[in-house]
Amino acid sequence: MSESTLTGNAVIGQSGGPTAAINATLAGVVKGAMEHNEIKEIFGAKHGIVGIMNEDFVNMREILQTEDDFYTLECTPAAALGSCRHKLPPPEETEVYEKIFSVFKKHDIRYVFLIGGNDSMDTVAKLSAYAEITDYEIRIIGVPKTIDNDLELTDHTPGFGSAAKYVATAVSEIARDCSVYIVPAVTIVEIMGRDAGWLAASAAIPRLYGQSTADLVYLPEAPFDYDCFIDDIIELQKTKPNIVVAVSEGIKDEYGRYVGDGTQSGLIDNFGHKYLAGAGKILENYVRRRIGCKVRSIELSLPQRCSGHLLSKCDIDESILVGKEAVALATKGESGIIPVFKRENSDEYKVRIVPVPVEAVANKIRKVDTKYINERSNNVSDDFLRVLAPLIEGEIEIPKVHGVPKHFVIK
Amino acid sequence: MSESTLTGNAVIGQSGGPTAAINATLAGVVKGAMEHNEIKEIFGAKHGIVGIMNEDFVNMREILQTEDDFYTLECTPAAALGSCRHKLPPPEETEVYEKIFSVFKKHDIRYVFLIGGNDSMDTVAKLSAYAEITDYEIRIIGVPKTIDNDLELTDHTPGFGSAAKYVATAVSEIARDCSVYIVPAVTIVEIMGRDAGWLAASAAIPRLYGQSTADLVYLPEAPFDYDCFIDDIIELQKTKPNIVVAVSEGIKDEYGRYVGDGTQSGLIDNFGHKYLAGAGKILENYVRRRIGCKVRSIELSLPQRCSGHLLSKCDIDESILVGKEAVALATKGESGIIPVFKRENSDEYKVRIVPVPVEAVANKIRKVDTKYINERSNNVSDDFLRVLAPLIEGEIEIPKVHGVPKHFVIK
Repeated sequence: MSESTLTGNAVIGQSGGPTAAINATLAGVVKGAMEHNEIKEIFGAKHGIVGIMNEDFVNMREILQTEDDFYTLECTPAAALGSCRHKLPPPEETEVYEKIFSVFKKHDIRYVFLIGGNDSMDTVAKLSAYAEITDYEIRIIGVPKTIDNDLELTDHTPGFGSAAKYVATAVSEIARDCSVYIVPAVTIVEIMGRDAGWLAASAAIPRLYGQSTADLVYLPEAPFDYDCFIDDIIELQKTKPNIVVAVSEGIKDEYGRYVGDGTQSGLIDNFGHKYLAGAGKILENYVRRRIGCKVRSIELSLPQRCSGHLLSKCDIDESILVGKEAVALATKGESGIIPVFKRENSDEYKVRIVPVPVEAVANKIRKVDTKYINERSNNVSDDFLRVLAPLIEGEIEIPKVHGVPKHFVIK
Repeated sequence: MSESTLTGNAVIGQSGGPTAAINATLAGVVKGAMEHNEIKEIFGAKHGIVGIMNEDFVNMREILQTEDDFYTLECTPAAALGSCRHKLPPPEETEVYEKIFSVFKKHDIRYVFLIGGNDSMDTVAKLSAYAEITDYEIRIIGVPKTIDNDLELTDHTPGFGSAAKYVATAVSEIARDCSVYIVPAVTIVEIMGRDAGWLAASAAIPRLYGQSTADLVYLPEAPFDYDCFIDDIIELQKTKPNIVVAVSEGIKDEYGRYVGDGTQSGLIDNFGHKYLAGAGKILENYVRRRIGCKVRSIELSLPQRCSGHLLSKCDIDESILVGKEAVALATKGESGIIPVFKRENSDEYKVRIVPVPVEAVANKIRKVDTKYINERSNNVSDDFLRVLAPLIEGEIEIPKVHGVPKHFVIK
């Protein structure tokens, strides 16, 4: 960590899957950069590292001028600078790195902020490692985002809270919708999370406040048992005709095979098209075959990550803050790090932001602790919901034009 | 129409598919009934006409006591009294009607309010016809609701505005999400509306205000041409990599065959399971086969009708009002009618509520005028969007508990 003041320009990029809060972090980084005199120009790179390689830059000081600009950007879902899924080659292939660093030098870029998830942190780690062997002084910072909440070494990730709020809200409303009829029925809601069940678990948060939600909740962290699943539905239907099931898209059977692959349920052979099925659709057909009642599956799909009309204030405030803090850390001399959240041991929810080395986070996955999953593997504990609940709290008034969300678009 | 004052009890039922505004109308009927001294007890029938036949009543005066009760109910999606899909037999089968009217007499019920769509109005029409041949004085009123907006003789229906607002918002957000990558891709959003394209057309409203939305919009009112569809995507992809398509679930080819049936696209034979496919999924596979680019389909599904977290103030205000007006009309002596909206010919959006005979509405479907669909049948006109736009305007602050919508539940 260099303590010296480093003067020059900054570049910001966004990468990986969209979230509803990734632009709040972009706004935070720009705000932070504007507060530090050693940072001159603030470039936005279009489509992350691809934009850096192609020198496809926009001027963030020109783009964001008023408080209203910032506010609208903070409430706009999906990466306003565009995104990419571009993996940098291994460090031995120096040509790409030489090219990138020649762009940095050409534009006097001394500060690099890449907002992304675990894959994007691989890019930050590789650039930081290369920076170590050059004599060009530059500070490279990863800034976290992912709705999946599966980054290592952090209490949670920016973007998760708003996605979790959408999931909790949608499943609660679907449960109300399904409650109106007396005909026995099963409704299966498929929720994002290929490797970790943070979002699927969030479906159950409304239970803490006596609100409707899923009756059964399945996470990838516990093996899925088809027979238990059917038994549990039949048992529940003895007292309640309408059963709502929340399943993570990534649930697996005891042999680690994805339910969404359809191999275990025996339905895949009939489909012919593997890409047709998700876990929800597979289970829909399984329930139809085994129980024969009315059954429907709903894939919450993209709205989970792009519903900017329903934001968690906690999430947006923290997403802005982590962007600002990334700049503060860089100006203090940090590089090759990512600021993450540590939760205080207090009654009231409180986090502080601390830097951790980016290699400790890159390409890793943080799963839900199985202590939070019940013995029958069909729900999560109230203790766990109390951990998740503060992250979806607080309302943000969304900028609208005649009832339609107003989005900040960077051409 | 009897002009005499009729004193007795009232019963309210809800039926058909849920909407986000059907409880606002329930609240409106109860408020209206409370304002008229000739109405004594106000019964809520559980699950519509089924609850009337079974004398399964709740006391609405006890259930709704405070302003807060009413407000929470108004913002709660899906029928709080429960719903049903029960078709009454033809008038010749008098036994059922005798049973229902014996319940009316037993409980001194003189006012009946059934909140529902075109099917539910069939029930109102049959009960009204039977009432004509009895000597029991009773006033039977239909109160409109349906997200489909396909009731005859009305400018629009309560429940449509909030559903349209959800569709417009979700598609706009999905379009932003899809815009972040540079890889050519097609995203197909399937929207409710088996017979009429009102909701699918609403997806395009954000265009009026310069906001992102679907590039192509297909309604059931115009025949769907597979080749034109592919040509239009290829043409659009010359200038824009990410194409968003909004399709009504009920689109049909030139021979009137549903696209969702999969017969025309040639994909159904490969599936084996017809129930797997909707129009969106069928078209997803069709684009994959014909163009070969990245393609995804999203079924907006139940959230279209139950997203109480995103309400149109115009819709909720009108939904309450039409409930109150139904009571006012009944106390004036009307029966066998349904109050509907007539739009004033004024620059500013304004409606008045007028009664029409329920038989004129029952079992009929109001379609979108094809003059609003463009020549290529792949979008709707700005004129049409200006007709729809006022219906989604205005925001309602939703009652929440720690970030989760607070629903009013009647046990």
